[in-house]
Amino acid sequence: MTQADTLIHAGHIIPVVPRGEVLENHSLAIADGRISAILPREQAQTITAAEVLDLPGHALFPGFVNSHGHAAMSLLRGYADDLALMPWLEEHIWPLEMQHASAEFVRDGAELAIAEMLRAGTTCFSDMYFFPNVVADVAQQVGVRCQLSFPIFDFPSAWGADSDDYISKGLALRDDHKHSELLQVVFGPHAPYTVNPAALGKVAMLAAELDLPIHIHLHETAREIEDSLAEHGQRPLARLYELGLIGPRTQCVHMTSVEEDEIALLAEVGAHVIHCPESNMKLASGRCPVPALLAAGVNVALGTDSAASNNDLSLPGEMRSAALLAKHGEGDATALPAATVLEMATINGARAMGLQEDIGSLEVGKLADLVAVDFAQPETQPLYNPVSQLVYATDAEQVTHSWVAGKALLAERRLLSLDLDDVLTRANRWAKTIVSG
Amino acid sequence: MTQADTLIHAGHIIPVVPRGEVLENHSLAIADGRISAILPREQAQTITAAEVLDLPGHALFPGFVNSHGHAAMSLLRGYADDLALMPWLEEHIWPLEMQHASAEFVRDGAELAIAEMLRAGTTCFSDMYFFPNVVADVAQQVGVRCQLSFPIFDFPSAWGADSDDYISKGLALRDDHKHSELLQVVFGPHAPYTVNPAALGKVAMLAAELDLPIHIHLHETAREIEDSLAEHGQRPLARLYELGLIGPRTQCVHMTSVEEDEIALLAEVGAHVIHCPESNMKLASGRCPVPALLAAGVNVALGTDSAASNNDLSLPGEMRSAALLAKHGEGDATALPAATVLEMATINGARAMGLQEDIGSLEVGKLADLVAVDFAQPETQPLYNPVSQLVYATDAEQVTHSWVAGKALLAERRLLSLDLDDVLTRANRWAKTIVSG
Repeated sequence: MTQADTLIHAGHIIPVVPRGEVLENHSLAIADGRISAILPREQAQTITAAEVLDLPGHALFPGFVNSHGHAAMSLLRGYADDLALMPWLEEHIWPLEMQHASAEFVRDGAELAIAEMLRAGTTCFSDMYFFPNVVADVAQQVGVRCQLSFPIFDFPSAWGADSDDYISKGLALRDDHKHSELLQVVFGPHAPYTVNPAALGKVAMLAAELDLPIHIHLHETAREIEDSLAEHGQRPLARLYELGLIGPRTQCVHMTSVEEDEIALLAEVGAHVIHCPESNMKLASGRCPVPALLAAGVNVALGTDSAASNNDLSLPGEMRSAALLAKHGEGDATALPAATVLEMATINGARAMGLQEDIGSLEVGKLADLVAVDFAQPETQPLYNPVSQLVYATDAEQVTHSWVAGKALLAERRLLSLDLDDVLTRANRWAKTIVSG
Repeated sequence: MTQADTLIHAGHIIPVVPRGEVLENHSLAIADGRISAILPREQAQTITAAEVLDLPGHALFPGFVNSHGHAAMSLLRGYADDLALMPWLEEHIWPLEMQHASAEFVRDGAELAIAEMLRAGTTCFSDMYFFPNVVADVAQQVGVRCQLSFPIFDFPSAWGADSDDYISKGLALRDDHKHSELLQVVFGPHAPYTVNPAALGKVAMLAAELDLPIHIHLHETAREIEDSLAEHGQRPLARLYELGLIGPRTQCVHMTSVEEDEIALLAEVGAHVIHCPESNMKLASGRCPVPALLAAGVNVALGTDSAASNNDLSLPGEMRSAALLAKHGEGDATALPAATVLEMATINGARAMGLQEDIGSLEVGKLADLVAVDFAQPETQPLYNPVSQLVYATDAEQVTHSWVAGKALLAERRLLSLDLDDVLTRANRWAKTIVSG
């Protein structure tokens, strides 16, 4: 007999690695926060566990990795819709943030976002926003995994004065959480057009020295590229590459416009692309050519962006949108099939963050970051192919359980480490404050 | 004091007509199946009702009208994904239907579809499938509103032998339900390429005589148009127009390719377009130019198509996809704003079916077909704009109540007129039968 902390009997297990595999009537054991066994149910009698869960109509899969977002902006969900990126930012979002984005705002917004993400099956999220120290505390308290890319701008905010100040605060935050099992602190230069070249060069140098990821908005819109050509005579990717910023730990977010030689460059240096289809569509920013990037060997992960431009933080919905947009854009219904999209939402996100040895798939030895969905509902019956069902038919409502490093955070859709009523009360209070100006 | 059957106090009422209007803290009264009053809550004391509901965190709006689908095909959800339209139909769906699409299959599939649709806020759906008589019985029994377009093909199925047989069976069905308060039976010639010209002409003549709508798949793919040009020297719309089939009661489903003169023709004759963005994207069929159609004055409604090509029957998701696809396709983030998309999912669907005097908006005197969503959830907080929230952030999970002609069909997400366990058991049994061949 072997001992485990938790033993889960599941109707279906989708390990993600190997691609497309589905294990029927298998059991998964968790010990010391890691997956200690995955085996046919009838062989699981050899395992004793403190907690045993029977989920016969459910599928178990690696928790979603939301590879790009601004959690606190959930407080601005639906505040300004049906607008293009720059007027949306310049006339609505940025003025509002200048006025309201305090530590308290970030705490309340991050809690709201985490509540929504956990209910939709996300167990690890990437965040880029002011007061990353506050998000760090919230994530730690709730027990959810998080990549914090501390923001770097030339202009001041309530959190920093200028790029140097942002960098030094960010590095201090990184030191605070160097040994955290849940948090990873990385560089977050906002975009090529909001950070000066000297600061971008400094980020490149420090990131190389510390072997830390860089998370940056890049080629989000055609205007960004036109402006760069006009001002610098170069497209942003080429400019950042010259500044040393594009390498195997760089997470390029959006990339709605990518030429052939740029795809080759990304593949050659091993940079990662974070695709945010719903935000790109909603802001009419263009379309990231995901199939071409994947074919060239570029790692492409999936992100929701913020609830202010999406307007939800649901990876199930984002997977569906990614698949549908690729098929539509390529004029090819076989483009980006379900198993590939599921990889983008799990293992590819882990790879982008350099966490692929620990999360992103269900394999013995990996951290027990996992999620269960209940297929025994009218939206997900009948069931022919669990992978297809997860990508094309599942919504947050089907997500029932989640664990991060073996700790249960969601059970029967109940949040175990957040006081939801309190979170909603505070969110509501912020809306009143913001509307009253 | 006036008397009502049901009185609902709602935090927000979105009547849809007039566009974009939101009434805060209002009450809606239902008497004899119709809306008898909409008034500020403090004035609702003058109304006594047998049933009073307090929904302070909810929004009340006209039930969604799903303007195109094949309900029974829910039993094929996820059976064959990531394939283009013609191989998907010819190699997977049609052979399977030839083998299995019996009256029993249609009953079980329709019940599954209706369960899903009610849980997502649909109160009226358009259906086109074999055994429409069975769907009629199911819809009547459950109490949901339905437009049944009886299918017409040249080729035989378990329901009919040839186009004449389909037409005579359909007209008999229409006679059976001529006085139904829930059902409307209309002509459903499948597509220009599956019905011979003589039969199409007969449909045109009979529909004009009986003043009945015609529901037809049209311009679904580029291949359909190329084939028509090769075979007939005409695009399908022009051909059907010459056959007398395109008029003010014609519902043209898909229309992914429409030239300028075709938009002008549709506007001039007052034909309706049914847009199915998710199915069109998933099958890589192209994009219906909704903004241009609306600008020309064409009525455009929204449909999910079947769960076999979507893979859900959720109008909230379809609204979001319609808005996002339009913004992306037009390169204009202001295209198809939330209030317009909501009209497509409600009043425009009613107009397409000729039911706009009775359903599609919350107005005194109209039938009480309405739905409540609970915004007090992390996915839909905070709340700035209820219309935006309904289109961009709401999913089935937020849908709590629905009524059709004043009769409650859903309460706190519980289906009141369907035995869900039984529905799921039968759906599951079909999957086993189908997989075992």
